[in-house]
Amino acid sequence: MNFNSYPSKLLDKAVNEFSKLPGIGSKTALRLVLHLLKQNESEVESFGNAMIDMRKKIKHCQMCHNISDTDKCSICANPTRDHSTICVVESIRDVLAIENTGQYNGVYHVLGGIISPMDGVGPSDLNIEQLIQRVNSGTVQEVILALSTTMEGDTTNFFIFRKLSQKQINITTLARGVAIGDELEYTDEVTLGRSLMNRTAFSV
Amino acid sequence: MNFNSYPSKLLDKAVNEFSKLPGIGSKTALRLVLHLLKQNESEVESFGNAMIDMRKKIKHCQMCHNISDTDKCSICANPTRDHSTICVVESIRDVLAIENTGQYNGVYHVLGGIISPMDGVGPSDLNIEQLIQRVNSGTVQEVILALSTTMEGDTTNFFIFRKLSQKQINITTLARGVAIGDELEYTDEVTLGRSLMNRTAFSV
Repeated sequence: MNFNSYPSKLLDKAVNEFSKLPGIGSKTALRLVLHLLKQNESEVESFGNAMIDMRKKIKHCQMCHNISDTDKCSICANPTRDHSTICVVESIRDVLAIENTGQYNGVYHVLGGIISPMDGVGPSDLNIEQLIQRVNSGTVQEVILALSTTMEGDTTNFFIFRKLSQKQINITTLARGVAIGDELEYTDEVTLGRSLMNRTAFSV
Repeated sequence: MNFNSYPSKLLDKAVNEFSKLPGIGSKTALRLVLHLLKQNESEVESFGNAMIDMRKKIKHCQMCHNISDTDKCSICANPTRDHSTICVVESIRDVLAIENTGQYNGVYHVLGGIISPMDGVGPSDLNIEQLIQRVNSGTVQEVILALSTTMEGDTTNFFIFRKLSQKQINITTLARGVAIGDELEYTDEVTLGRSLMNRTAFSV
């Protein structure tokens, strides 16, 4: 069923905006919008403003590029964390996944993507240079490469490994307890925690 | 995987707001919020404001209770539509579904729900009294009951039928039968039985 025209332009615009989100088709969008229409005005304002506020005010940590409300994220600002160990991840969602295992006490470095020539993402589009600068600062003893076990993840691992292989640091990678082809985000906590504990030296 | 804590309160609030929507869990909410975070500030503003504007400014047609940008919806305001035929539906989505068939040229009456004692919805919570007033105004010749074929839909049909049965109008309901394109084999007994009882003259 396609809805060719809505009786209201305001509704039409709201449904259109919702349909732009990934995985939300026009039918789901209409269902969600009609749900919002039934809520109190203050609740819908709270919903809309939460999105606008988040986009406007959220920052990226100057150290690790994780999202944060302040210039330095709560992980980088925490003196009880091990700042000599950096876990390199693709995105913020991976930080959340690893934090959730409760097995990791180091800090992070969020690349903001992985090298993917098919999508036009090269090394210069990622926060790789900043990672090398952090390593050059001298306090880092270990870099854990925790990218997805896909072709693109392996390529990125290899690129970073080559850039860092001359430094006096350990370069490790997650134990391959994570199933090949699986996304970090969807791995269960036990497997993900174990793969952190059993991380191995990176070799090619 | 549960996310126990987000590194940002702004993110936390946005994810929470999204999770309130029906069918959106915390993981989907996070995915959608992180998608919004990647968009331009103006796009996210457009998204948020579309929801707020819609909730604030949208009206319900004074005639048929359909949603509308004006006091009278585009269907009720259209002089080429047949205003002597009223199709009674549960919600706005049913209006859109029927409009989409392109087979109906009358007007509508949106009840805003159906009688459902289990959910605490009685006749006084719906726009039934307004329907009777429309019929009393004298120009209506036919009322089509187009509610769901559930216990609640049948109850509501019966309630409206009793209220209108003394008036000089036709009260009809949607034809029930085997759906176009359906296999007889997979049609449920009640529907198949009804379609046999209500068989119609074959015509080409």
